[in-house]
Amino acid sequence: MSLIVQKYGGTSVADVDRIRNVAARVAEIQKQGHQVVVCVSAMSGETNKLDALAREISGNAEPNPREFDALLSTGEQKTIALLAMAIQALGVPARSFTGGQMGMETDSSHTRARIQRIQTDRLRAHLDEGAVCVIAGFQGVDSGGNITTLGRGGSDTSAVAVAAALGADVCEIYTDVDGVYTADPRVAENARKLSKISFEEMLELASLGAKVLQTRSVKFAMRYAVPLHVRSSFKSDDGTWIVPEEDVMERLVVSGVTSNVNEAKIRLRNVPDQPGIAVRVFTPLGEAGIVVDMIVQNFANDGTTDMTFTVPRADYARALAIAQQVGEALNCAAVEGDDQIAKVSIVGLGMKDHAGVATRMFDVLATENINIQMISTSEIKISVVIEEERAEVAVRALHAALVDEAPASPGA
Amino acid sequence: MSLIVQKYGGTSVADVDRIRNVAARVAEIQKQGHQVVVCVSAMSGETNKLDALAREISGNAEPNPREFDALLSTGEQKTIALLAMAIQALGVPARSFTGGQMGMETDSSHTRARIQRIQTDRLRAHLDEGAVCVIAGFQGVDSGGNITTLGRGGSDTSAVAVAAALGADVCEIYTDVDGVYTADPRVAENARKLSKISFEEMLELASLGAKVLQTRSVKFAMRYAVPLHVRSSFKSDDGTWIVPEEDVMERLVVSGVTSNVNEAKIRLRNVPDQPGIAVRVFTPLGEAGIVVDMIVQNFANDGTTDMTFTVPRADYARALAIAQQVGEALNCAAVEGDDQIAKVSIVGLGMKDHAGVATRMFDVLATENINIQMISTSEIKISVVIEEERAEVAVRALHAALVDEAPASPGA
Repeated sequence: MSLIVQKYGGTSVADVDRIRNVAARVAEIQKQGHQVVVCVSAMSGETNKLDALAREISGNAEPNPREFDALLSTGEQKTIALLAMAIQALGVPARSFTGGQMGMETDSSHTRARIQRIQTDRLRAHLDEGAVCVIAGFQGVDSGGNITTLGRGGSDTSAVAVAAALGADVCEIYTDVDGVYTADPRVAENARKLSKISFEEMLELASLGAKVLQTRSVKFAMRYAVPLHVRSSFKSDDGTWIVPEEDVMERLVVSGVTSNVNEAKIRLRNVPDQPGIAVRVFTPLGEAGIVVDMIVQNFANDGTTDMTFTVPRADYARALAIAQQVGEALNCAAVEGDDQIAKVSIVGLGMKDHAGVATRMFDVLATENINIQMISTSEIKISVVIEEERAEVAVRALHAALVDEAPASPGA
Repeated sequence: MSLIVQKYGGTSVADVDRIRNVAARVAEIQKQGHQVVVCVSAMSGETNKLDALAREISGNAEPNPREFDALLSTGEQKTIALLAMAIQALGVPARSFTGGQMGMETDSSHTRARIQRIQTDRLRAHLDEGAVCVIAGFQGVDSGGNITTLGRGGSDTSAVAVAAALGADVCEIYTDVDGVYTADPRVAENARKLSKISFEEMLELASLGAKVLQTRSVKFAMRYAVPLHVRSSFKSDDGTWIVPEEDVMERLVVSGVTSNVNEAKIRLRNVPDQPGIAVRVFTPLGEAGIVVDMIVQNFANDGTTDMTFTVPRADYARALAIAQQVGEALNCAAVEGDDQIAKVSIVGLGMKDHAGVATRMFDVLATENINIQMISTSEIKISVVIEEERAEVAVRALHAALVDEAPASPGA
């Protein structure tokens, strides 16, 4: 008997028929003798509808965060009640739990609360009685009993956190794709599904824009060593297992190629090359809530340097205006921006042991006559910024050269 | 400074504009220096939508009552969050409370829970800090933290119960009519709005089909002497105050004429006139969940009697089938039914002191050539069953003779 935590996203519970499908899958697992906790999101479209209502009613004001959370949390509550009914209609005992009812305690940062701890007694008691526990993702309560939500990717995080707290054997993430691919199959036709990938690689892929899992939930799973299994809610085949590095047998040098077109770059030219300049540039951006991703600073020349950084494309106009103010104050030669860029990355555990992967990457791009504007690396990742319109060509070429043709390296 | 509890029904919060209207009204009262608790229902249509989803997903099975409550309670939760946002957008502090958050403790009878007690500390603390408390009607939690709902008329009951627990100065019930009328104005053109009416009269009117307030909430208000004020959410005029009998100065002999066409009658002819017969007739109806309203038994004749009773029209077919089985077992001469009936009633505190009101009523009906099929009386009410198609004529004639022309009796 295993204890399995399953998480179904909004598209998997979008309507009555799909909720019935999920119920059938859950009932089957439970009848095989496993204990099952099912974590669900709001039915797809529901959260957007509630969000729109909140904005409409608040007029020009920002909706109050506490009330916004109280409103949004109704979406998941609706799903848990309906799914519990559907499971019961199949003759399997089931019980729904809101964030508060399941003991999901968070801090009081409304709309982006952090999980403090999970009181699992109640869930465990019902599991031991043979009931399926249907829990609301994305929501919790603070110590004052106020409803909170966890922000983007919250439902994945809820599922992983509950799996960790219960010591579950696996946390299955059901989604509309059937696993993690070496590249977007719509771009690179030879892209293939990975049967296993390490937490570290998944973390890089997730933060680089692979939408299959949210970064935050992968971090959580890694910290508590909860095996994740990403799979399709419409098929029964295995998807991709995300596991500790030592459990990945076939270590690909490059296990994934991604591209992300949600960033823009800004350059300050001829910034004085002296201590404290970076602080003066990035403090006002941080204060404006703008998250800076890559930062590149050239070698100084004549006492000045160029500083280039990327920001989310949605914040581009605001960031550029701030940079221009800073640039004036610092007597920069110019402040320029470009929002037609793509960040293309390769990720792989095997890069740790293989020198020369970066060179190989730059070589592939040069062969395709693609100019590299910025470079950023980590132990298991290399990202480059290039022109947006060359992104797909770059992904295809890098996948062909570094994934398709490369041999696997031996497991650790 | 007064403490005012206001209750708005589903039509008053049906969309964003109407919620804004409610917010404006609440903000105005609060700015006058009063403390305000606002109790709201689900946006109109919402509960029906959720109910339909529950039935669809449960297939032939009855939706699980615990999950049904968890589902329905999202309707009110949505409204409280939106209303609190709307009030805040007007610069007035406001805070929403679900049933659980506001300390509404009930028993565990899902879908028809009874209120056990209300822990008002939290509401009181926020009122004392100057915030408007926006509370979800219709819902509570049991001692195990499960979400419960109060059943029909639950939101009115929530409002009254909170008003009682807080010792509020008044509980205002906002609705789409502007008060309690002496008769349905669409039927009796001289019908007028009552400025005051006693709890006892309102209770009779409510149980006779006046839809402005649910019987249960009036009982609650009477028990705890909470003054009710029924008024329109679209106008600012005073509506009707519902108060203890001793506070009604102008005691009308007849303060209301109602008609109810939601019943059907069933007659068992020549039932043996012996002890235990009524039990044999009504026990199977009770077991089938059918509520019998009026019961009339004639004087015995030749050792047999006729027994006639009324049931909700929706239960007529089932009730008739049961009555026919009972009739056969008892060797009745016949079992007959009629669902084209109306129950027309007159209600008034003054009837206590005025003899002859019944005679006057029968006289008016006789003049209109309306045949009385059944009669039932209480201290402050007389009901008659007549042909359905004569109901409006009866109401008009009774209103003209007993309300329009009658003098008020002196207050107690």
